[in-house]
Amino acid sequence: MPETLTHKILASHLASGELAPGADITVAVDQILIEDATGTMAAMQFEMLGVDSVAVPLAVMYVDHNVLQIDDKNMQDHRYLRTFSARYGLRYSPAGHGISHYIHLEHFSRPGQVLVGADSHTSTAGALGMFALGAGGLEVAVAMAGYGFDFVCPAVVGVELTGTLGRNAEAKDVVLELLRRHGVRGGRGKVFEFYGEGVASLSVSARATICNMIIETGAATAIFPSDDQTREWLRAQRREDQFVPLAADAGAMYDDGEQLDLSGLVPLVALPHSPGNVRPVSELPRTEVVQVCVGSSVNSSYEDLATVAAILKGHTVHPSVQLTVTPGSRQILQTIIASGVYEDLMGAGARMLEPVCGPCVGIGQAPTAGAPSLRTFNRNFPGRSGTAEDCVYLCSPSTAAASALHGAIVDASTVSRGELHPATPPNPEVHDLHIAGVLPLESRRAIEIERGSNLVPPPQPEPLAPDVDARVLIVVGDDISTGDMAPDGAIAMSVWSNIAVCARFMFRRLDPGFHDRALEWGGGIIVGGENYGQGSSREHAALIPLYLGVRVVAARSYARIHRRNLIAAGIVPLILPLDVQSSTGQRWVIDGLADALVGGDRSVAARVDDGDAELMLGLDFSPAERAVLTAGGLLAQVRTGGRSPLASDAVVQDDAAGASQSRSAR
Amino acid sequence: MPETLTHKILASHLASGELAPGADITVAVDQILIEDATGTMAAMQFEMLGVDSVAVPLAVMYVDHNVLQIDDKNMQDHRYLRTFSARYGLRYSPAGHGISHYIHLEHFSRPGQVLVGADSHTSTAGALGMFALGAGGLEVAVAMAGYGFDFVCPAVVGVELTGTLGRNAEAKDVVLELLRRHGVRGGRGKVFEFYGEGVASLSVSARATICNMIIETGAATAIFPSDDQTREWLRAQRREDQFVPLAADAGAMYDDGEQLDLSGLVPLVALPHSPGNVRPVSELPRTEVVQVCVGSSVNSSYEDLATVAAILKGHTVHPSVQLTVTPGSRQILQTIIASGVYEDLMGAGARMLEPVCGPCVGIGQAPTAGAPSLRTFNRNFPGRSGTAEDCVYLCSPSTAAASALHGAIVDASTVSRGELHPATPPNPEVHDLHIAGVLPLESRRAIEIERGSNLVPPPQPEPLAPDVDARVLIVVGDDISTGDMAPDGAIAMSVWSNIAVCARFMFRRLDPGFHDRALEWGGGIIVGGENYGQGSSREHAALIPLYLGVRVVAARSYARIHRRNLIAAGIVPLILPLDVQSSTGQRWVIDGLADALVGGDRSVAARVDDGDAELMLGLDFSPAERAVLTAGGLLAQVRTGGRSPLASDAVVQDDAAGASQSRSAR
Repeated sequence: MPETLTHKILASHLASGELAPGADITVAVDQILIEDATGTMAAMQFEMLGVDSVAVPLAVMYVDHNVLQIDDKNMQDHRYLRTFSARYGLRYSPAGHGISHYIHLEHFSRPGQVLVGADSHTSTAGALGMFALGAGGLEVAVAMAGYGFDFVCPAVVGVELTGTLGRNAEAKDVVLELLRRHGVRGGRGKVFEFYGEGVASLSVSARATICNMIIETGAATAIFPSDDQTREWLRAQRREDQFVPLAADAGAMYDDGEQLDLSGLVPLVALPHSPGNVRPVSELPRTEVVQVCVGSSVNSSYEDLATVAAILKGHTVHPSVQLTVTPGSRQILQTIIASGVYEDLMGAGARMLEPVCGPCVGIGQAPTAGAPSLRTFNRNFPGRSGTAEDCVYLCSPSTAAASALHGAIVDASTVSRGELHPATPPNPEVHDLHIAGVLPLESRRAIEIERGSNLVPPPQPEPLAPDVDARVLIVVGDDISTGDMAPDGAIAMSVWSNIAVCARFMFRRLDPGFHDRALEWGGGIIVGGENYGQGSSREHAALIPLYLGVRVVAARSYARIHRRNLIAAGIVPLILPLDVQSSTGQRWVIDGLADALVGGDRSVAARVDDGDAELMLGLDFSPAERAVLTAGGLLAQVRTGGRSPLASDAVVQDDAAGASQSRSAR
Repeated sequence: MPETLTHKILASHLASGELAPGADITVAVDQILIEDATGTMAAMQFEMLGVDSVAVPLAVMYVDHNVLQIDDKNMQDHRYLRTFSARYGLRYSPAGHGISHYIHLEHFSRPGQVLVGADSHTSTAGALGMFALGAGGLEVAVAMAGYGFDFVCPAVVGVELTGTLGRNAEAKDVVLELLRRHGVRGGRGKVFEFYGEGVASLSVSARATICNMIIETGAATAIFPSDDQTREWLRAQRREDQFVPLAADAGAMYDDGEQLDLSGLVPLVALPHSPGNVRPVSELPRTEVVQVCVGSSVNSSYEDLATVAAILKGHTVHPSVQLTVTPGSRQILQTIIASGVYEDLMGAGARMLEPVCGPCVGIGQAPTAGAPSLRTFNRNFPGRSGTAEDCVYLCSPSTAAASALHGAIVDASTVSRGELHPATPPNPEVHDLHIAGVLPLESRRAIEIERGSNLVPPPQPEPLAPDVDARVLIVVGDDISTGDMAPDGAIAMSVWSNIAVCARFMFRRLDPGFHDRALEWGGGIIVGGENYGQGSSREHAALIPLYLGVRVVAARSYARIHRRNLIAAGIVPLILPLDVQSSTGQRWVIDGLADALVGGDRSVAARVDDGDAELMLGLDFSPAERAVLTAGGLLAQVRTGGRSPLASDAVVQDDAAGASQSRSAR
């Protein structure tokens, strides 16, 4: 049977389960990506697993989020992660070296391999023909310890690309168009696999933008074939030997499909406060902006920045606009300097920031409240910019550049621009001098891990009680992001290594009394709406409720990663029927919840406020998920032997870079 | 009589008073420098003066401190300052354009003129033969409104330089040597004027380092002659027409004098926690560092960064060290890019930061507590780095570079280095496209000033009561800096536009209960030691006590600017006898304080705790200072007509840049 590219890769890595949408599967993992914000928890949980070394061919720790160092906490985290990495065998990319997703594309991503990352935008590596999935820190830690990666097999959507992009439309507009079609929920349970004659015209950087931001639809990931563009990228990165051509078979049967004509795309913009709130730029009323930000884990590539420079060159940014530009990595920084792009940007008045995540997660450059800020980033959830009452729009680099000159949102058809400068990027300077290597295991055992006071291991769940008797702590609406639970920003994120402190920020924007109420009530139930927990993979959004005594959440539907994080933390994510209204303070008694989970029941009854009426709550779990919940969370399951490591032949180290090809799809 | 350079400039600008050390003088002001951290208060106070426009030839507002934008407050400040500047006729240099002192040297500083700045390091411009003085925001606002600048005439110390610097000693070591000799108090009441054959070998950048950091001795400022180095600097900045040769007359009589042989200098380092705690690097025990920071308003010049690059080129920073590099301005950034210095620094693994004050004031890059951080900055007061329990050492660029490679403090004799690259800096790209110009007054009147909620006008003092009856709120030790009162750092400084919020941070490191106690007691008395209020010019250190109800401070001695800020705020800085010990909670009754001030008394008695013993407190004030205190502070004095603007011929605009030459010394 003709196969999809997704299935080829998954099949070559499959350790258990069946490749059918909705089925539990376990795959062998070639590479692990961790960044510092989620990484301190992931690392502390890895240490709790009691293994002596990472057990995958390659694991890389990137410090790219908490790097402003507004007090001493960030540097404590860095020094912990550096010594942790040295001890357990991860490569370590220090603060200032670049954004994980860009560096990973440059140095490590390989066609046909499986990457699991403790960052939702790990999907970026799909640009290079990898199957790349974001996950919570504990799930990543378990995979890194050699247990493989467990997940629910997604459906594969074939997206046929035709035509080529016009002058003012960019890869960002491709993914904004998919968000216009699917919103922030339509992609759930799916992988978007691109094919068709339009694919060849998209560079790896362009594909990276699409794969990165696809997850805002709720999708698990996206993937492009490995073709001449892939080979060209690997050649420029001095890794041409790692190229393998990969594509879906002709006539492959997708679970679903759609078409997208690149030549028909117009510049799009996502309005506040959702990446799914997409409109053509041309349909916007005049919108003056106080800030334009270029960069982040999308649109920080050489091409992106050269596009901006081609528009800005010889002009000066509008005086009431603050323009920031963030290169994706030190390699990109070197390339824009060598090519003159940097000088053009600086000459126009851009603030040239370090190659770090920065303003994309509100770590610096927070805008004034209520004033439009236009950004080439991937998310505009309320408050993510670091300003609670922000007003963030998302767009492509050329739209950002044109708007920076005008002081209002316009697309690039309104400005003249030179050709890209130069048309093809200069060959990058490729070296990994600044990414610490892996020592032999014997030398590693002597390394002392530096543990600052900011680093506090996360709480562990008690085994699930047979019954639940608790009050509703809060009722929130649809599309609540994990950023509402563990907020972004330099201040809030500086305490992500300490769940008890982090907990003070939970739901602060929505209900400042939540934290104190939860402590006072000794826990309770969170009631959510649709797509509860969208956005970032931060497991803090599950560990904080655990710390606050929450063992049950009831929402109409969930975002993938957050749902898995709840389960890993031993919290039961129940399905709330559509017609049920709840309110803070309600008492819910759910008798026999634990038994219902073990027994495979599809629903369980809750008595509300001692009344006669029963509320039927859905138990929509796979067998593997029920096992984790019954074990009292993933860490307990692994520690009590409820899960076995993969056989060691699943992971064969094949070269100095530590990459594996044992299971690569060919 | 042969004259000193200092007296020549002061004489040419003297509006009233006599040029004798200790006498009240008023000088006409050619230029005003304001930065954002102190500038929001200065601007709000300027607005209270009720004038329609700045009344000096040139005033420039620089945004270079609060630029991380960790929440929405910074950008509110920026937008206020931008619109304020546009309305009242200041030029405006936005965030990211550079550090005030470097940009001012590049574009505006002129030999023979008088500059007053709301920043203690305004003295930097002495490098170009200016008389440049830091002051509190209100004093600067009053000067900017056309009242001239009042101060107590300093003594002039002639420093004869001989010889030339050896290979591993730098300008930083010159000023560290002066700090070794004088400590942080020895320079009080003095101007250091450099002369002698050693002067010619020091570039303007080198002189800037010395003039900047001289104030850490307590000095008012420092000044160099205007000579061939000055002409060369102005030529490179396309301002050769502004050159005038200036020097002390042969045989000029200095109030005091000393000699310094440049050829005998060795690399020096200031140990925690004082710039006056100076030792030769060679005498230090092995000191491993976790961080090395290059830059700030000293040592961010082209030469400084090229020196670092020459040492780092081809090497990689020690893996356990975080190295940051901050260029002083966008012009310097452009120059290090054009010359290849930037690539050498980046290639070695430096984190290249924006050209802003940054880590020097703890706005980013806070180190881990207790771990040595080596910095080319000018201050290492405890907590200034943003980390309360920091451990900061100060050194030259070459010592910083060598230490970054070794991971421990060493001087550059331990490393090989290439020649400077290139030996002379490339001609900088000179333009002022990003510094907003000044509109005609008529157009300015229509400009609406943007006032965010972070901007709260400061409190105003009631007239001084006849008597004082209050309790001692706190007793602090010697050399307490204004940073202990209004702390540095991204978090604490983000609220500098709102005194009531800022007040929560006062003395927090020393006594976390101070703020609440002051509020509870409705004010009180602060008792200090020697050199109370050293360091930064931030008048918040006076406005916070005013807000908290403090009208009297009693210290053994004061730092110049803070003392003047207290007086401007209507707070009486009394002299505490050496043998007196006080304690928190003591009640002091000072009958007839107001009368004693008016009457010119030299002391006043305080009854302590209703006992019989009397404490004699010194009243060491000039007549002008007594007048300000009696008027209830400087703003009240000006608003009630207690001071007259200078005649308008004191300020003649002579060119597009707005610089004056009417009173330049020739």
